[in-house]
Amino acid sequence: MDDKVILTIGRQFGSGGREIGQKLAHALGIVYYDKELMALAAKESGLSEEFFKKADERASSGLSYAFTMGFPYMGLFSSYTDVLSNDRLFLYQSDAIRKLAAEGSCIIVGRCADYILRDDPACLSFFIHNRKENRIQRIVAGENVTVEQAEELMTKTDKSRAAYYNYYTNKEWGVASSYNFSIDVSVLGVDETVEFIQSFVNRKLNRRPPHFG
Amino acid sequence: MDDKVILTIGRQFGSGGREIGQKLAHALGIVYYDKELMALAAKESGLSEEFFKKADERASSGLSYAFTMGFPYMGLFSSYTDVLSNDRLFLYQSDAIRKLAAEGSCIIVGRCADYILRDDPACLSFFIHNRKENRIQRIVAGENVTVEQAEELMTKTDKSRAAYYNYYTNKEWGVASSYNFSIDVSVLGVDETVEFIQSFVNRKLNRRPPHFG
Repeated sequence: MDDKVILTIGRQFGSGGREIGQKLAHALGIVYYDKELMALAAKESGLSEEFFKKADERASSGLSYAFTMGFPYMGLFSSYTDVLSNDRLFLYQSDAIRKLAAEGSCIIVGRCADYILRDDPACLSFFIHNRKENRIQRIVAGENVTVEQAEELMTKTDKSRAAYYNYYTNKEWGVASSYNFSIDVSVLGVDETVEFIQSFVNRKLNRRPPHFG
Repeated sequence: MDDKVILTIGRQFGSGGREIGQKLAHALGIVYYDKELMALAAKESGLSEEFFKKADERASSGLSYAFTMGFPYMGLFSSYTDVLSNDRLFLYQSDAIRKLAAEGSCIIVGRCADYILRDDPACLSFFIHNRKENRIQRIVAGENVTVEQAEELMTKTDKSRAAYYNYYTNKEWGVASSYNFSIDVSVLGVDETVEFIQSFVNRKLNRRPPHFG
């Protein structure tokens, strides 16, 4: 691609957001970052990658629980030190995200990238969601779990992602106005959703197909 | 259009959702319903149109206030009779919406149409949002008010729409997963957003432009 674009993707667990991000990166010929970000942040910080994986997209350990159960319970599950170290991990990851975005066009999945890069005019933010039944089917296949386990995993992971996003940004996870564009994958399916998002990026870059005149 | 489509549009106040709905209806050659629904519902019910206008997209009078202020205040502002009559208005309007959708392709703005028509396979639901600055500018121009008044009107109208939607549906107003597709008008502007939504409808109907192969 000639023009620079940074696409950030938020997604419901099991929605197909990761697959869409990878296929979109391939279609646009740009770099895709997801879990790779942790390795980069770890390298920057000098800390172990394990450490980052443990904290990845989780609000400071007590926090996501506190968001669900109410703050009086917070003291039982977290400590001031936990909060501090998770916040430091977030800062390392934010630095890694800003460096990657400065290097050139890319797609970044999760990790509040839309908020971290909010002042970058090349940034477009997406939120990917899907029908509940399709998500459960995807989780059952991808994680090798039962339907009941898939449903529990789906609810818990979304809660955890929402807590992380709502804690580190001034926006709300999954709310339409937090993103430039949100789409239900079940309408067009994965591959055509990728094509459709690509056409949005092309329009944004003023490279509309000829038939639009 | 040959194939039937029912497009429902939810929208932030001042986002341009109404203008987009009208232009989209024109582009697709289908009927547009917004405030017209009230006249139809009034005709069905034998009640005055004024009566419907007063209750339009407001949850039972005390309810939207109760959602904001907490339920203890509810008794001060509503009565059982109010709740009953507003619920009856909602039912008349729902009937009108179902009849229109049965008649043929159309666009329906607001009034929980996405929920009322949730089992109709021809139905696609959209949520239109916009940058705060653009919305205020649109409201100032459209309602002939000051910037401060526009901001207040924006916040109050959105709260009222959310209360209405959240009361009458099992979904949440403005949350991405409540709709098939949500878009920030500021990225492409009104006219190209209309074109882009039109391309989504065409894809859904499998009438993709030739260059997509």
